[in-house]
Amino acid sequence: MDKFKRNERLAVMTQVLTAAPNKIFTLSHFCEMFGAAKSTVSEDTAILAATMRQFGLGTVETVTGAAGGMRYRPMAQEGEGRRFMEEICEMMRAPSRVLPGGYLYFSDILSDPVLVSGMGKLFASQFYDAGVDFVLTMETKGIPVALMTAEALHVPLTIARHSSKVYEGSAVNINYVSGKGVIETMSLSRRAVKEGSTALIVDDFMRGGGTARGMLSMLSEFNVHCAGACFVMALEPSAHLMENQKALMLLDEVRPGEPIQVRVADWVK
Amino acid sequence: MDKFKRNERLAVMTQVLTAAPNKIFTLSHFCEMFGAAKSTVSEDTAILAATMRQFGLGTVETVTGAAGGMRYRPMAQEGEGRRFMEEICEMMRAPSRVLPGGYLYFSDILSDPVLVSGMGKLFASQFYDAGVDFVLTMETKGIPVALMTAEALHVPLTIARHSSKVYEGSAVNINYVSGKGVIETMSLSRRAVKEGSTALIVDDFMRGGGTARGMLSMLSEFNVHCAGACFVMALEPSAHLMENQKALMLLDEVRPGEPIQVRVADWVK
Repeated sequence: MDKFKRNERLAVMTQVLTAAPNKIFTLSHFCEMFGAAKSTVSEDTAILAATMRQFGLGTVETVTGAAGGMRYRPMAQEGEGRRFMEEICEMMRAPSRVLPGGYLYFSDILSDPVLVSGMGKLFASQFYDAGVDFVLTMETKGIPVALMTAEALHVPLTIARHSSKVYEGSAVNINYVSGKGVIETMSLSRRAVKEGSTALIVDDFMRGGGTARGMLSMLSEFNVHCAGACFVMALEPSAHLMENQKALMLLDEVRPGEPIQVRVADWVK
Repeated sequence: MDKFKRNERLAVMTQVLTAAPNKIFTLSHFCEMFGAAKSTVSEDTAILAATMRQFGLGTVETVTGAAGGMRYRPMAQEGEGRRFMEEICEMMRAPSRVLPGGYLYFSDILSDPVLVSGMGKLFASQFYDAGVDFVLTMETKGIPVALMTAEALHVPLTIARHSSKVYEGSAVNINYVSGKGVIETMSLSRRAVKEGSTALIVDDFMRGGGTARGMLSMLSEFNVHCAGACFVMALEPSAHLMENQKALMLLDEVRPGEPIQVRVADWVK
């Protein structure tokens, strides 16, 4: 007789798999945990996969090969990602968000764990099979959503700075032209990046694409391939940086006194 | 007959509850989701609570009262938090981390989603019943662990800046004396904080406690109560700021050529 009931095994497997999205757990991991046979855990996995699919809570997949096992990938049900982003757009449209100079206040949205976690999963869902080794962001506002994207992909986050810091060790510094047309500096710790790896850029906002171009040029200094670039919001008309660029929300130039024109991008399902 | 099997209901409840730690879900929420009777979902909850407890994966609690329901709180099993932190301490002891000036490189640890998520849960576990309304951190290095603490407490994160930014709106600026004895500026957007609420401070490192004192003085400008202060690492002997201050790791002054002396704090179980 099995030591634990299927009920119990499924609850535990769900907690373990969903707490570490995209991480591969071997069948043996769960066999040892439950003192159960491989056939039993295989059946459990099949039930779990079907249940998650049925409720649109993400996918549980079996990965074959030497490093095989099973993994959980959070994927929004068709329509759910769009509904989630429509709600955020509605929050964005509050007239009180307009600041002098046509800026929009949305720091609250960019640091709300529930919202950045949802947005990070949407970004990750577009790059699960792109072989991303790490997520790169530029301090400061994009850090929370970049962290959640990295979590959903099960990769580390690397943060570029405006200037080199004593506690980052030796760094590569580059200059780039910011969205405002000003020359700025970007610094990235040498030990934070492995030559020849693959990065995903995540940032909060794209105006002219200057900061993102700076990150691309920084990555080429490290001989790192860039799988794509994700932005919470992009100002229309957006700059074209690369094939795989994804913005969740598209914003028209903000004019004081007029309604804020922001909409969810077409790729968000 | 129930539309879904207990197996399936338990897997779904686990995913929903653990994806939103500390958030209260009503019994009706799950009754509607499954088309099941309250008695059925109550039994499911009891089984889930017992299973999570048995495997040391956190607590599922029933909250009574008008805003009642059930919630999941991630809590490490006795000994597991310490084991987790011992591993991070071991990473910290690598001699290659020592930088000129006696600084230690640990930006990699501070932006690894798995590590900051675990540390955030340890911080949250100390403040679940402190009525925390938001987490406050000072840019930049503490943002990831502060975000994960906020997620585990199901509250927003607020980020203080080194200077006021056009996209943060009107802000309160204060001056404070940093750990290095230099006068620095801290800026916090007025709309990011609600008067009379309760904050939890989270930051990466405490040397003399200057930045944390700055945050305390900022909070008092907003008439906000501070429930406690959490630091990933504190330099020994630590400054005493308040009763509820928690550092995960305690570090002795780093001397080039000598082994790095760092240990897990006693409160971490």
